[in-house]
Amino acid sequence: MTDIGTVLYAHAAALFPIYRSITGEGVRITLRYIQDQIPLNIKQVPTGTQVLDWKIPAEWSVCGASLSTIDGRTIVDVQNNNLHLMQYSTPVDRIVPRQELEGHLHSLPEKPDLIPYRTSYYRRDWGICLAHNDRLSLTDEAYRVRIQTSLEPGHLSYGECVLPGSEDAEVLISAHVCHPSLANDNLSGIAVAIEMARALASRPHRFTYRFLFAPATIGAITWLHHNRDAAERIRHGLVLTCLGDPGAPTYKRSRRGTAAIDRYAEYVLQGDGHADRVLAFTPTGYDERQFCSPGFDLPVGCLMRSPNETFPEYHTSADNLSFVTPQALADSLRVLNDIVELAERDETFRNTAPWGEPQLGRRGLHDGKRAAGLDRMAILWVLNLSDGQHSLFDIARHCGMPFAAIAAAADALRDVGLLAPIAPQRSGAVTPAAWRA
Amino acid sequence: MTDIGTVLYAHAAALFPIYRSITGEGVRITLRYIQDQIPLNIKQVPTGTQVLDWKIPAEWSVCGASLSTIDGRTIVDVQNNNLHLMQYSTPVDRIVPRQELEGHLHSLPEKPDLIPYRTSYYRRDWGICLAHNDRLSLTDEAYRVRIQTSLEPGHLSYGECVLPGSEDAEVLISAHVCHPSLANDNLSGIAVAIEMARALASRPHRFTYRFLFAPATIGAITWLHHNRDAAERIRHGLVLTCLGDPGAPTYKRSRRGTAAIDRYAEYVLQGDGHADRVLAFTPTGYDERQFCSPGFDLPVGCLMRSPNETFPEYHTSADNLSFVTPQALADSLRVLNDIVELAERDETFRNTAPWGEPQLGRRGLHDGKRAAGLDRMAILWVLNLSDGQHSLFDIARHCGMPFAAIAAAADALRDVGLLAPIAPQRSGAVTPAAWRA
Amino acid sequence: MTDIGTVLYAHAAALFPIYRSITGEGVRITLRYIQDQIPLNIKQVPTGTQVLDWKIPAEWSVCGASLSTIDGRTIVDVQNNNLHLMQYSTPVDRIVPRQELEGHLHSLPEKPDLIPYRTSYYRRDWGICLAHNDRLSLTDEAYRVRIQTSLEPGHLSYGECVLPGSEDAEVLISAHVCHPSLANDNLSGIAVAIEMARALASRPHRFTYRFLFAPATIGAITWLHHNRDAAERIRHGLVLTCLGDPGAPTYKRSRRGTAAIDRYAEYVLQGDGHADRVLAFTPTGYDERQFCSPGFDLPVGCLMRSPNETFPEYHTSADNLSFVTPQALADSLRVLNDIVELAERDETFRNTAPWGEPQLGRRGLHDGKRAAGLDRMAILWVLNLSDGQHSLFDIARHCGMPFAAIAAAADALRDVGLLAPIAPQRSGAVTPAAWRA
Repeated sequence: MTDIGTVLYAHAAALFPIYRSITGEGVRITLRYIQDQIPLNIKQVPTGTQVLDWKIPAEWSVCGASLSTIDGRTIVDVQNNNLHLMQYSTPVDRIVPRQELEGHLHSLPEKPDLIPYRTSYYRRDWGICLAHNDRLSLTDEAYRVRIQTSLEPGHLSYGECVLPGSEDAEVLISAHVCHPSLANDNLSGIAVAIEMARALASRPHRFTYRFLFAPATIGAITWLHHNRDAAERIRHGLVLTCLGDPGAPTYKRSRRGTAAIDRYAEYVLQGDGHADRVLAFTPTGYDERQFCSPGFDLPVGCLMRSPNETFPEYHTSADNLSFVTPQALADSLRVLNDIVELAERDETFRNTAPWGEPQLGRRGLHDGKRAAGLDRMAILWVLNLSDGQHSLFDIARHCGMPFAAIAAAADALRDVGLLAPIAPQRSGAVTPAAWRA
Repeated sequence: MTDIGTVLYAHAAALFPIYRSITGEGVRITLRYIQDQIPLNIKQVPTGTQVLDWKIPAEWSVCGASLSTIDGRTIVDVQNNNLHLMQYSTPVDRIVPRQELEGHLHSLPEKPDLIPYRTSYYRRDWGICLAHNDRLSLTDEAYRVRIQTSLEPGHLSYGECVLPGSEDAEVLISAHVCHPSLANDNLSGIAVAIEMARALASRPHRFTYRFLFAPATIGAITWLHHNRDAAERIRHGLVLTCLGDPGAPTYKRSRRGTAAIDRYAEYVLQGDGHADRVLAFTPTGYDERQFCSPGFDLPVGCLMRSPNETFPEYHTSADNLSFVTPQALADSLRVLNDIVELAERDETFRNTAPWGEPQLGRRGLHDGKRAAGLDRMAILWVLNLSDGQHSLFDIARHCGMPFAAIAAAADALRDVGLLAPIAPQRSGAVTPAAWRA
Repeated sequence: MTDIGTVLYAHAAALFPIYRSITGEGVRITLRYIQDQIPLNIKQVPTGTQVLDWKIPAEWSVCGASLSTIDGRTIVDVQNNNLHLMQYSTPVDRIVPRQELEGHLHSLPEKPDLIPYRTSYYRRDWGICLAHNDRLSLTDEAYRVRIQTSLEPGHLSYGECVLPGSEDAEVLISAHVCHPSLANDNLSGIAVAIEMARALASRPHRFTYRFLFAPATIGAITWLHHNRDAAERIRHGLVLTCLGDPGAPTYKRSRRGTAAIDRYAEYVLQGDGHADRVLAFTPTGYDERQFCSPGFDLPVGCLMRSPNETFPEYHTSADNLSFVTPQALADSLRVLNDIVELAERDETFRNTAPWGEPQLGRRGLHDGKRAAGLDRMAILWVLNLSDGQHSLFDIARHCGMPFAAIAAAADALRDVGLLAPIAPQRSGAVTPAAWRA
């Protein structure tokens, strides 16, 4: 059986060469690849559709792009690296004087060997991205720029994999699919999401899981626009990104700050010795910006390894298949799975014999068979705090015992009828008072 | 006049030889001893009565118990130490092969000179408890075991001493009475409760005090079952145990954690320099387990010196009359009395001239006779914070002044009509939402 | 143009020689001086009027006061220093034996060159205040005391300067005007209040500003008695005192502790590096005692430099024009102005496009002209937290950005319609439940 790290890495490797943007054939090819792995429902939303405060942009297609000398020597060609062309560049086919050209070149003087990643989705422009060392070699009076692109009515595409659970309440796991040839940001997220979905599809689960693969920003906005009902069912959510680099796992809290998902992720990272890598919410980053916009205010955090903008490879040609490792990808999937399992097992109960202690002996929980392997203190804590106000996770945090011990005690107590489930409180999107009609 | 420590010690000494268990004649003898000291109402509840989740067990009587060699040499006899017989042992009168016997012997290899205390109330069994050194001397093939006990329908007995105050609200003070020949756990608690009751009976008090002397666990459960109304009137409560050993005073909080009783006890222990001996609630220990079960959730903490299971003498023959001292018992009574006095004097008032400062001068509180001995800052704080939301104790804690200074200022202000009492909020048992019909 | 420090100092110098008390001509002369500077409405309340728990006292007038030897040598004369006469002294004109005289002399043994400030408003008495060194020279058998005062029905006087803003909600700025010839306590407060009022009168403002110049205690009580409606409109308030000494600025919180005014003052002092000079509320000090009495519980703090009773010059003849400096006065006005500006600019908004992020690009806020000079993070934070629950100040504190950056972002967002104001919650006096009819 293939090692899971290898499997995850293979997804990243397969997707790396595809030319992706927020619209266009590259996204569709990517979604079809995912569809080959897990059940995926691909949606197409036409250009011009109003989505929340935005409109779906025209679809952008690329045939080729190059910068060459007037005598025909190629300096950069998008065939060599997808990053060479600024995304959403308008078509150009002419000799451009060097002075004008400089205004369209993008390079990184402080990292002279790397090609930067640049976009101009909503402002019409064109641009060539290149290593600063290559840029320094441009001394001719003029160069030939050939950008073969088109911007036409088309669609924005995204994919959803929904795995129904025994409850309607949903867990949203979202990865963006618009970055071209950037391995950590975000083929790593796509890979981990695929394998998490595959794993969940093969085992019973309580929550309904919704895996969303969509272009960043406009994709999340489009999904939110068309899925207000589903948004209200979201109990927990995670944006997956930058999960393949050698850094330690990092969690960025939801806007709520202490939502259950925030506390689960904190617990798992603490258990891994990474309590210092739990970050406060900020209204920047990835699609948590949309899910945590104040109207929705969803309990959605962001799981990463090295956070965006903190590693030198970020948004450059160095974020490639050498930067991500099977080990890091496998560890990220493990962390995600730990968080998911915590969510699955965390329930809130009502002690059915809350007046005094129930007699454990006659139910085999004092020193009978059922008591074997159970922690007596865990049994007593679960009984004492199962007042409908404390979930099993709350109880574990309160008494400092491992969640697993508390959950095992709860299973035994439920078996003998001493615990009854409490209907969970809806914790998804509720229109805040400020915007209620 | 006899020193109070001596008085307390004498109670422990008088009660030490009596053979107590959760039912039976020993408990009744113990209750009658208490009845000779303070007014006590003794209740008898028949075997088989349903009490909360439990049933009153059969009454257990002991005529004798011994382990001897086949040739008649006595090895252990319950006449020498009440702990030799495991409580609720079934009758035996036969030669028992040594191998079988071993399964019924209880000793402490790590404390080879001490006899352990063991019970088997709800699982039919028999057992002999002995010093491990004596156990090691048992080398014969078989021994004679003679356990003369009976388990018959009878009663569970408990006693209550109720001292009505000027208010219906109650203070519960509870001590368990089921342990045989263990001095710290819990003849110390009984002794301190007796003298606290005697002291309160001889002075006016605001609260109604209810002293409960009952077998641990089943006794508290029985009381709760039959006294739901009284439980709702409990404003503050303390379980008394292990109050005679040389350790410093210790307070274990109620389940609520910050109930008034928790804050009073914390204040007294802080004043004694024992802030570190205020412990969080746990659902183990003594009858606070029952009073703080989630359905009742009463504001009842536990006052101790060395906590159970933390001292080597715990539940062994070393918890005897040499282990407890008059000095420790007297200090425990003093701590209890300090807490009781704090509760008595803590009231919540409404400033009757809350608009601006009242003119203290014309009421003799500026520099008149009434102001003598009063702290001016205490007067100003009481006036400023007596808004019905802060009790005198809250005010003392807020401003950091001694409670006594705040209470004296409040007395003076009440005398001149500047404070009016606020009807107190009920803080006793209220059915939590989870179990409301 | 004259330096503002010089202007402030000149007010103190002009007012220093006037003989002030809680009633009488000195207060009226002082109020007329203020009236020459800013629009001031002077109110007269007759002796005997009931004000809250108090009555307006008789008006006290002073013609002269001296202590001299029997042969006519003057030892102290109130003409030399206004502090020589204990305020509200009854008239005396006779030879007083030295022993009797000693009971009426006030001096400071530990500061033998300074004259203390003493009053006896509500207890009939007379007193001479003098340097302890001068007192030691009194060795005659008897001295002549001549105190020419009268206590007659008259008025209590106070002045108000009200500057209407675009909102009814008020900011109260209060300075006491009863101290005679004490420069820091409180000519400094009067001077700063005059110039703050003058500055606000010359610029648009949102709040209605009410400057109150009244005798301490009885003046504030009188104002509160007659202005319950205005008290309910007070959104923020500051008592000004001791603002001219060389100490660093100090803020004493309102009774509420975390009212907006408390948080504004804390922010300004933190910005100045004086976080350690933000003090908890106490029910002593100046007229915050009245404004923060529990019935009113107004959000009124106290702005000072060295707090009362902490500097050796306090309430002595050393609190003179040498003790206060133009620099300190100017800095105090600057701090006050910073707090006022913070209050003016702090508003609570509702994001009008709260579902996902609004598209900033098409509104010129991404990289357009409107974005120039704005902090992008500030824009995102304002949008994310403008949910009607967070004011701009709350947002700045939450994200740790400077308030100015947050306010600038909010201005830009309001300009493009992305923010709408929320009707503010009333934060003035509301009768607490304890005293509601």
